[in-house]
Amino acid sequence: MANMPRSKGYRIIAEFSIHPIGKGTGVSSYVRTALAELRKAKGLRLRVTPMATVIEAERLSDILTAVEAAHESLFRQGAKRVDFFLRVDDRRDKARRMEDKVRAVQR
Amino acid sequence: MANMPRSKGYRIIAEFSIHPIGKGTGVSSYVRTALAELRKAKGLRLRVTPMATVIEAERLSDILTAVEAAHESLFRQGAKRVDFFLRVDDRRDKARRMEDKVRAVQR
Amino acid sequence: MANMPRSKGYRIIAEFSIHPIGKGTGVSSYVRTALAELRKAKGLRLRVTPMATVIEAERLSDILTAVEAAHESLFRQGAKRVDFFLRVDDRRDKARRMEDKVRAVQR
Amino acid sequence: MANMPRSKGYRIIAEFSIHPIGKGTGVSSYVRTALAELRKAKGLRLRVTPMATVIEAERLSDILTAVEAAHESLFRQGAKRVDFFLRVDDRRDKARRMEDKVRAVQR
Repeated sequence: MANMPRSKGYRIIAEFSIHPIGKGTGVSSYVRTALAELRKAKGLRLRVTPMATVIEAERLSDILTAVEAAHESLFRQGAKRVDFFLRVDDRRDKARRMEDKVRAVQR
Repeated sequence: MANMPRSKGYRIIAEFSIHPIGKGTGVSSYVRTALAELRKAKGLRLRVTPMATVIEAERLSDILTAVEAAHESLFRQGAKRVDFFLRVDDRRDKARRMEDKVRAVQR
Repeated sequence: MANMPRSKGYRIIAEFSIHPIGKGTGVSSYVRTALAELRKAKGLRLRVTPMATVIEAERLSDILTAVEAAHESLFRQGAKRVDFFLRVDDRRDKARRMEDKVRAVQR
Repeated sequence: MANMPRSKGYRIIAEFSIHPIGKGTGVSSYVRTALAELRKAKGLRLRVTPMATVIEAERLSDILTAVEAAHESLFRQGAKRVDFFLRVDDRRDKARRMEDKVRAVQR
């Protein structure tokens, strides 16, 4: 699916969190697998936080493709049930990067 | 990206919520637009709840394609900033439909 | 903390989803326990959906008290790790019930 | 509302995001107000990310009290509709801080 070309400088900022259900209380080996898929994806900037991974991209389709790859990778690692959540913030009246959002609320 | 063919009967169950920011406190005309996009999409069963739309599908890619179309439709309607959230529950050790999840917790 | 008395007819609408991590792929017995706590709570209307429980209340504090009780109940049932998510929509310029939100987007 | 005393070293890690609907596309002055409330609260460690604020606490009730205060503060600032989301991760089989979660997935 094609995304419209975005105006220069506009970025989508999202956050993504994923874990298997039924693979014990420690899930970090699965999260590492998901992160490896995100890092392989094109066009993404990533920042890992204690609760999610923040993703910045010019195109929503790049984020969704990476999320789908990350999701599938957990089943290859042996998970039988996987839950993820994705929150997307797309603002087209103002160019900004992920750092700008943090700066704006800490002034 | 291609999704592997899913075993017969296995369904992904998700929920999706979207709204514009900066278009007044009432956002239902935008939510209707997003819902119209979801209804046009192939392979989805939908149920509208007071806080989100529940989506059932055989393929995650069908859900993501529909979500992307819904997202883009709000900008065409005039929104300058759009936020959405998507939660996905994919269980591959047991066939179930969205109704089964409700039944299981109300027994 | 005390919540201000709300104007007559104004309701907060929320959704809540909870599950243990590390207790197998099937978690419905835990969700039933959480729901039992929500049903014991005062001042809540509930509707179970395939992905969450929608909660309507006059006071946010009633929702938070019930969520805390539900959360604690999963540990009593044996969970070692519990994740929940809560989304709250509080609109004070228009009286509405949970059914109104569904109706508004299906017109 | 009483929370059981937690074992030494165990921390709840959460993330919280809030914004007004209907106050323009730029909402950072409202997010700053919410953050000021979180900073006044007792017993919380905070880290602002581009999509949310990560909160660490010994007691869930401290997080919920702070979230309720943050929520109410946006109405005092003039918002007529406020949405927030809160995700909580409570693990009681292993002591950890928010930094440990990031470290574990970046090894």
